[in-house]
Amino acid sequence: MRKSIATVSLSGSLSEKLTAIAAAGFDGVEIFENDLIASPLSPEEVRSRAADLGLSIDLYQPFRDYEAVPADLLADNLRRAERKFAVMERLGADLLLVCSSVSPDAVDDDALAAGHLYELAERAQRHGIRIAYEALAWGRHISTYDHAWRVVKAADHPSLGTCLDSFHIISRASDPRAIEEIPGEKIFFLQLADAPLMAMDVLQWSRHYRCFPGQGGLDLTGLLAHTVKAGYQGPLSLEVFNDVFRQADAGRTAVDAMRSLLALEESAGLATPPSPVVPSGFAFAELAAADTEPLRGLLGSLGFARTGRHTGKPVEMWEQGEARILLNTTGADRRSGPALAAIGLESPDPSAAVRRAETLLAPVVPRRRGARETRLDAVAAPDGTELFLCRTGHADHPSWTADFAPVPAGPPEAAASDGTGITGIDHMALTQPWHHFDEAALFYRSVLGLKPDESHDLADPYGLFRSRAVANAEGSLRIALNVAPSPEGAAGTRPQHIALATDDIIATARRMRQRGAAFLSIPANYYDDLDARYDLPAETLETLRELEILYDRDERGEFLHCYTATVGRIFFEVVQRTGEYRGYGARNATVRLAAQHTAHRGV
Amino acid sequence: MRKSIATVSLSGSLSEKLTAIAAAGFDGVEIFENDLIASPLSPEEVRSRAADLGLSIDLYQPFRDYEAVPADLLADNLRRAERKFAVMERLGADLLLVCSSVSPDAVDDDALAAGHLYELAERAQRHGIRIAYEALAWGRHISTYDHAWRVVKAADHPSLGTCLDSFHIISRASDPRAIEEIPGEKIFFLQLADAPLMAMDVLQWSRHYRCFPGQGGLDLTGLLAHTVKAGYQGPLSLEVFNDVFRQADAGRTAVDAMRSLLALEESAGLATPPSPVVPSGFAFAELAAADTEPLRGLLGSLGFARTGRHTGKPVEMWEQGEARILLNTTGADRRSGPALAAIGLESPDPSAAVRRAETLLAPVVPRRRGARETRLDAVAAPDGTELFLCRTGHADHPSWTADFAPVPAGPPEAAASDGTGITGIDHMALTQPWHHFDEAALFYRSVLGLKPDESHDLADPYGLFRSRAVANAEGSLRIALNVAPSPEGAAGTRPQHIALATDDIIATARRMRQRGAAFLSIPANYYDDLDARYDLPAETLETLRELEILYDRDERGEFLHCYTATVGRIFFEVVQRTGEYRGYGARNATVRLAAQHTAHRGV
Repeated sequence: MRKSIATVSLSGSLSEKLTAIAAAGFDGVEIFENDLIASPLSPEEVRSRAADLGLSIDLYQPFRDYEAVPADLLADNLRRAERKFAVMERLGADLLLVCSSVSPDAVDDDALAAGHLYELAERAQRHGIRIAYEALAWGRHISTYDHAWRVVKAADHPSLGTCLDSFHIISRASDPRAIEEIPGEKIFFLQLADAPLMAMDVLQWSRHYRCFPGQGGLDLTGLLAHTVKAGYQGPLSLEVFNDVFRQADAGRTAVDAMRSLLALEESAGLATPPSPVVPSGFAFAELAAADTEPLRGLLGSLGFARTGRHTGKPVEMWEQGEARILLNTTGADRRSGPALAAIGLESPDPSAAVRRAETLLAPVVPRRRGARETRLDAVAAPDGTELFLCRTGHADHPSWTADFAPVPAGPPEAAASDGTGITGIDHMALTQPWHHFDEAALFYRSVLGLKPDESHDLADPYGLFRSRAVANAEGSLRIALNVAPSPEGAAGTRPQHIALATDDIIATARRMRQRGAAFLSIPANYYDDLDARYDLPAETLETLRELEILYDRDERGEFLHCYTATVGRIFFEVVQRTGEYRGYGARNATVRLAAQHTAHRGV
Repeated sequence: MRKSIATVSLSGSLSEKLTAIAAAGFDGVEIFENDLIASPLSPEEVRSRAADLGLSIDLYQPFRDYEAVPADLLADNLRRAERKFAVMERLGADLLLVCSSVSPDAVDDDALAAGHLYELAERAQRHGIRIAYEALAWGRHISTYDHAWRVVKAADHPSLGTCLDSFHIISRASDPRAIEEIPGEKIFFLQLADAPLMAMDVLQWSRHYRCFPGQGGLDLTGLLAHTVKAGYQGPLSLEVFNDVFRQADAGRTAVDAMRSLLALEESAGLATPPSPVVPSGFAFAELAAADTEPLRGLLGSLGFARTGRHTGKPVEMWEQGEARILLNTTGADRRSGPALAAIGLESPDPSAAVRRAETLLAPVVPRRRGARETRLDAVAAPDGTELFLCRTGHADHPSWTADFAPVPAGPPEAAASDGTGITGIDHMALTQPWHHFDEAALFYRSVLGLKPDESHDLADPYGLFRSRAVANAEGSLRIALNVAPSPEGAAGTRPQHIALATDDIIATARRMRQRGAAFLSIPANYYDDLDARYDLPAETLETLRELEILYDRDERGEFLHCYTATVGRIFFEVVQRTGEYRGYGARNATVRLAAQHTAHRGV
């Protein structure tokens, strides 16, 4: 279906918005009136700018507080409408959104409303303009889509139809099945917006918290299916008011928006892009550092052994169990220290995964490679981390490991090869840019087919973090996405961490300590509280306290975890899961975050 | 009354919080359990730190999900309580807050709840600890203060009392008059928090949007009066969960908090600080610039004349009507260009105003002055602007103008002396630091006795601004406080402006243009919309369009205004009010903000 977006959904000037919308591949645009009014471009200039960019102007919006008023006000309102028709003619727009009145002057009289809308449509028709009437969820007398449709039906004018808006419909808990009773040709327009499920005043909710389809909790797939079944032929159009998007880069937001529509079309069965190829696990984590010595020391103390060296680049591989860490000295930011630059994901079919990613507008990372180097497919995640799609050690696909030559085990490596009991990578945690947290969750869900968890608030001493994990169904691939309390906080160093799995955290932590690994100090008060909360055996509690291991449990199992000191932007976590525990120890996050501040700055 | 604050109200480590709380003059502190758990300080160390700072530990909180559960869970909960009693003994805290259970395990049985609370109080008593039971607004079975009190009364144990929390009481719309029926000695604690009036889920509202008394919309004065009348003798204690305060500097937040309690005590008739001395108008605006040439050019084109020169400093005075602008070349930030450094306020009694300000913890600005210079009293506003309290040209007080020597009118000044019809300063607009917007409104209200307006959202192309004006009753002194969409935005240049009043904006604008004043270009589309909105005579509309004057009206009158180009952080507005219009043309703000971006960056 054709795809459109309201200019209010993006930041910037009207000119910037149109450019971003076209670049993201939209077919058309809804011109939000305030964007036109505040623009130095004349309507004619906007018209030709849009035409140059290949965008149709699908809707001009909104026209407010029109219908069901006393006669003198009607005359004023018709005069106002005529002025807007004149602007629309200059703009080349032939569809006007009229939303149901919120004015105290409006009366509760459907027949009067229908009569006034007929009169408006009659005048619009003379200008070649059609009217799409929409119920605002907070409309004074008309606030549901079926009520708006009854009024449109009663008015019965060929230039009058209805506009459906997913937010207004779902926020009023209207039954969307009745959409199918509206003749498709009378649905003049469909506006789509998602929103997180929040118990708040609907006007505030709508004005500040709307988001793109798939980023919130509304069932847009069902609503779209009913609308298509009704015979709707118009565009899918996004109309999203969001305080964060208002501040974000328009170009990125537009791509995020388009991705949301592509995923929505797929979920509603209206398009069949290449299926997602869900990664089955981590192939590697790649750390970039100008000076890798601190990381080598840390990895050695964690029981990793250096096992390979890239044959064409200054990259070395360290391994323990299934966990592989690459250390790369090229392209590192020298000032902020070691950082997680790339993640290798095990994929059943890397090429198909990349086709999926390209279809969903994920930036495919161009690779310069040597003549004999293995081809590696990679896409860039919203935070800039490169995601490599790998197939390690299978005969049906070249393995990236072929580019590494084994390193002869010298004395330190021989000692390290005993390991400390790490079996693999449990999860990775990435701090996301403040403006792109919702984009990130949608990216991992739509591009890679991962499933997002609920979002949590984590209290840091200097503000609330938000955290949301994405994972595959088996839990063999988990990524925690965190966002700092404010754009300012995020502009500093963004911590990232790699959580290593063990089946016996006590033994692992002891061995790591013997090798000299430095762990994050956990306050003694934490263990006093743990004692109050859970009736753990005294001996267990003492061991946890001694090894500075944190503890959580739920009805499915237990989670034990400890943290190394931070090097640059990176630290490691060691985790042991028992039973079917699927979380990340969120209730311990406050203690961990405070302890990291303490370690960083002294008490 | 004694004053206390919960550590959760401030940002930082427990140690930082205690220091900030003591520095702001509080008598005691509520220790929020998570702050202790995350602290590397032992309970004994916290106890001695608090003692060193002169702070009593008034409450340990919260103990959750205790009462009205099946027998096996009761045993667990009592064990948990014993552990907390042990921590409290180490901490030297003798009052524990227990909040009503939200657990699905709790049953709806007041007698059982009372029995369990009796059991808890009995055990607490052995440790010299008392229990303050509080109804959470979202408690599972007990969610109102009167219900909590009935249960406490039924339990009838000397170590059991109730805790009143203004947020929980007012958010449930409970009638606070029944507080007077509780014996004062059974009200063990009073927690105070305000909140903006918002229609949202009460848990979210409480956890993220609480603020200090006087910063929101709850009637804390009434609630406090009822509680004191009941015979309550304990401290006034603030417990505020706020996403912004969590990020702000703890020292400043603590002072803001203390100021809110001082103002609350006054409004409830419990204290009589020096009365506010409400300023009657603006004495001057002082602009600081390393290079004053651009400002001199601008002021000249606006019709100001240079009339005086400070006898001891590089400061000159420009005047037109009652508007006085000082240009100061000392202390200016050379990089960001001209900025508003100080505001002179006409005060009926500057010395009394300063006594008021000092009592309410406003920083009094120390002045170095020459031997013959007039004494000038000044306090610093939350954004750093210095507020001078002046009494211009009255025999009963030295006038600051005495320090200025008249400047002989040369040819350019002679021309300027005709003026352009400016009669005085209508208002000033100051952009506030992002973390201190609520503090600013409370500052102007409590320190200067100004009245805050409602808060508005203004849509900038790159995010939403919030704006709130403060004014005196006559409207002769108005200050608009704006805050940028994010801390990042605010860290850049913070625009400030001075609005000049005229009785005939058309004539004034024409004369200014004749003198070469550069005005902000307003898009033609704005006038097309103005034509649609208001049936203005065609000639008027054409004049507004020609002179790039914006227009607003409400049921009380009209507002016409235009803007100069920006110099450094400063621009001027010219305004004409008719009738009783009291606003600031908020509906035109989007157009103005977009036009300023256009002017700054090109289309």
